[in-house]
Amino acid sequence: MKDNNHDTFMGASTKQGLDIANKSREIIRNLIGEEIKDLKPAEKDIVERIVHSTADPEYAKLVYMSPDFVEVAIKSMKNNETILTDINMVKSGITRYDGNVECYIKNEDVKRIAKENQITRAAAAIRYAAENDFEGIIVSGNAPTAVWEAMDLYNNGEINLKAIVGVPVGFVGAADSKEALRKSNIPNIITKGPKGGTPIAVACVNSLIQTLKEV
Amino acid sequence: MKDNNHDTFMGASTKQGLDIANKSREIIRNLIGEEIKDLKPAEKDIVERIVHSTADPEYAKLVYMSPDFVEVAIKSMKNNETILTDINMVKSGITRYDGNVECYIKNEDVKRIAKENQITRAAAAIRYAAENDFEGIIVSGNAPTAVWEAMDLYNNGEINLKAIVGVPVGFVGAADSKEALRKSNIPNIITKGPKGGTPIAVACVNSLIQTLKEV
Repeated sequence: MKDNNHDTFMGASTKQGLDIANKSREIIRNLIGEEIKDLKPAEKDIVERIVHSTADPEYAKLVYMSPDFVEVAIKSMKNNETILTDINMVKSGITRYDGNVECYIKNEDVKRIAKENQITRAAAAIRYAAENDFEGIIVSGNAPTAVWEAMDLYNNGEINLKAIVGVPVGFVGAADSKEALRKSNIPNIITKGPKGGTPIAVACVNSLIQTLKEV
Repeated sequence: MKDNNHDTFMGASTKQGLDIANKSREIIRNLIGEEIKDLKPAEKDIVERIVHSTADPEYAKLVYMSPDFVEVAIKSMKNNETILTDINMVKSGITRYDGNVECYIKNEDVKRIAKENQITRAAAAIRYAAENDFEGIIVSGNAPTAVWEAMDLYNNGEINLKAIVGVPVGFVGAADSKEALRKSNIPNIITKGPKGGTPIAVACVNSLIQTLKEV
């Protein structure tokens, strides 16, 4: 059990908020403790926080991390490398990071790249980042096309990415993109199947930030 | 079936994005069509968009709307009244609204109100809005305390709210707050039980905005 001498705990910052977060964690440990018992502490924190953010214990069965994911991601974040999100909702949920959190989906160049290449803006935003000295972690809570583009660029040596939080949501294409990412040699976290989304992406990153600040 | 002559459809704006959204809607209709067959078209749109945003068909069973919810919310939005969200993640997901979308959680006065009264910042933000001429719709995707505070102020005639999108998530307090809201005479949409969250809140509001723009 963590102590509560943090500024925040699972996003809570007032006494009432902390009480709720503590009780929630107790319930979550009862629900999924057995399933995640073999994970490392920082990995457990991620899964618990995802279940906390969704109230959906099924995520304990759906989350997979490559063995190197936490270590690589924490190292990148310790160096304040960029966290690049696919949509602004994910960006705005990531709090207390000392480096830059970026999202280029509304960038005019990105719109142009998307139009010219008939690709999604989410994919175009990754391409734009690669062309503009991106170095860091890519976080996709929405668009499988962002995950595919990141993997393509990585395989071609065209992007300096360290890890992918690949948890896009949807019945079309999301599961395939995550399965491909899981089988890649990129440090990654994914959710199996169609489920995923913003809260899962945000919970993962904010849990890593919390781990980083405790080390 | 809607035509595709919109600027956007379920958040998609490129050809590839539209194809994905259309295919997704087809899958969703196969999954939950029977369950939502008695809803009005704008209500169906909301539930379909929630399932689209979460890839979780269980939401077709969990979403409840008061019979007046859509009409009252659309009227408020037609008048460009304020949409007040409990957290910034919800705010940043609401796109293409012609009125103001506000979130006061980081406001310094709100922090002071929370501290002085030992309440959550989410609750303090609702109190702050009530004291500052708020008129419109309250959207909670995160904090049950925001829903309780809004109901209390409404019952005391201290806030000019028209409807509540009350879909906070969590194992502690969320379900109770939503059940109380469901039983209130405030036009509302809720999700039964602990599940809910940002994507559900955002999907609901963006679906209403789409309906509004089509009328």
